Amino acid sequence: MANDDRYHHGNLRQALIDAGLDILEERGVDGVTLREAARRAGVSHAAPYHHFSDKANLIESIAVHGFEGFARALQRAWESTSGNALERLQSTGIAYVAFALGRPALFRLMNRQELRTPRLASDNEPGPVEQAAHASYQILVDGIIECQAAGLIARGDPNPYALTAWSLVHGLAVLGMDGLIIDREPTVEAGEQLARMATGVLGQGLMVR
Amino acid sequence: MANDDRYHHGNLRQALIDAGLDILEERGVDGVTLREAARRAGVSHAAPYHHFSDKANLIESIAVHGFEGFARALQRAWESTSGNALERLQSTGIAYVAFALGRPALFRLMNRQELRTPRLASDNEPGPVEQAAHASYQILVDGIIECQAAGLIARGDPNPYALTAWSLVHGLAVLGMDGLIIDREPTVEAGEQLARMATGVLGQGLMVR
Repeated sequence: MANDDRYHHGNLRQALIDAGLDILEERGVDGVTLREAARRAGVSHAAPYHHFSDKANLIESIAVHGFEGFARALQRAWESTSGNALERLQSTGIAYVAFALGRPALFRLMNRQELRTPRLASDNEPGPVEQAAHASYQILVDGIIECQAAGLIARGDPNPYALTAWSLVHGLAVLGMDGLIIDREPTVEAGEQLARMATGVLGQGLMVR
Repeated sequence: MANDDRYHHGNLRQALIDAGLDILEERGVDGVTLREAARRAGVSHAAPYHHFSDKANLIESIAVHGFEGFARALQRAWESTSGNALERLQSTGIAYVAFALGRPALFRLMNRQELRTPRLASDNEPGPVEQAAHASYQILVDGIIECQAAGLIARGDPNPYALTAWSLVHGLAVLGMDGLIIDREPTVEAGEQLARMATGVLGQGLMVR
């Protein structure tokens, strides 16, 4: 179709991911198809195949794109917070919960187990989604390391501390999304308030006496 | 059928719940039907209707039964731990994660949002699953209160502390079940080890200086 021409190279790929995101929010992951993404982007059925090998590849790309935005949100929270490294780390944790409550369908997709592991059992390399997830986790680890450098958290392997902080905000995110704390329709603001409280308690635990 | 007679009153109800649990572990929640539960319990198709109004009611009863076992596991961990209240509370948190990793299908069912809210929008009473869930949460709150009474955790509303502890172990449980930490097939032991570490860090945060 002529419409295929209106996208510059690369823009169609992003337009299809954006369409996929919309479908995901409306219909869940099972509704995401190359055909429907093409329809919404206003291109032919064949056009997506220039960018995605199949539906699974589109979904994977949506998850990677999600993690890229997630990492930016965490990084922005770190950078925009004045205060010491522990206060910046707390903001990062609050941003984690806010992202999940703001985009629950995307956050759930990003954490689907089958997207996070190599496609082939023979392949031990982490797949693209796992690599993107790891980049987000690394922001947390780097935050812990900065706290350690500032003498705010005890030195040593940062991973146990990062894992503890991650579990806490992931738990809040999941309980919030599932409507098991806060309200059935939890707002981002309510999640942020809870996350501020909970990460504050944890921060006391991380802090060197 | 004659087989229906082999159950004393009440035993068939439990036998159907047990059968439902087995189906849940094998096939997931969508496989759980009154008919299949009856088949496995060796009774007629009609027999379950003496105890359950429909499939949803059986599933709800499985979740309530799950929370009863969960509460017992948490309580047992509290009672069997020597040490101060904070150490007992830590054991309770480790038991939380161990239960989830040991019975992931059941734990997921117990936390399905649609089971946790009143069936009718006009009904503000918590349903039976939510009531059972609350009894488990109360064990955590009571543990915090004991820590406060022992001077180990600062006095005041125990709920923020309980919610923080709950989020941490729930996050570990979910990340563990989803294979996003530990291995793709996480063992209970690996989960307990992680939970010991993470709850230890949090315990430092809860503890009065």
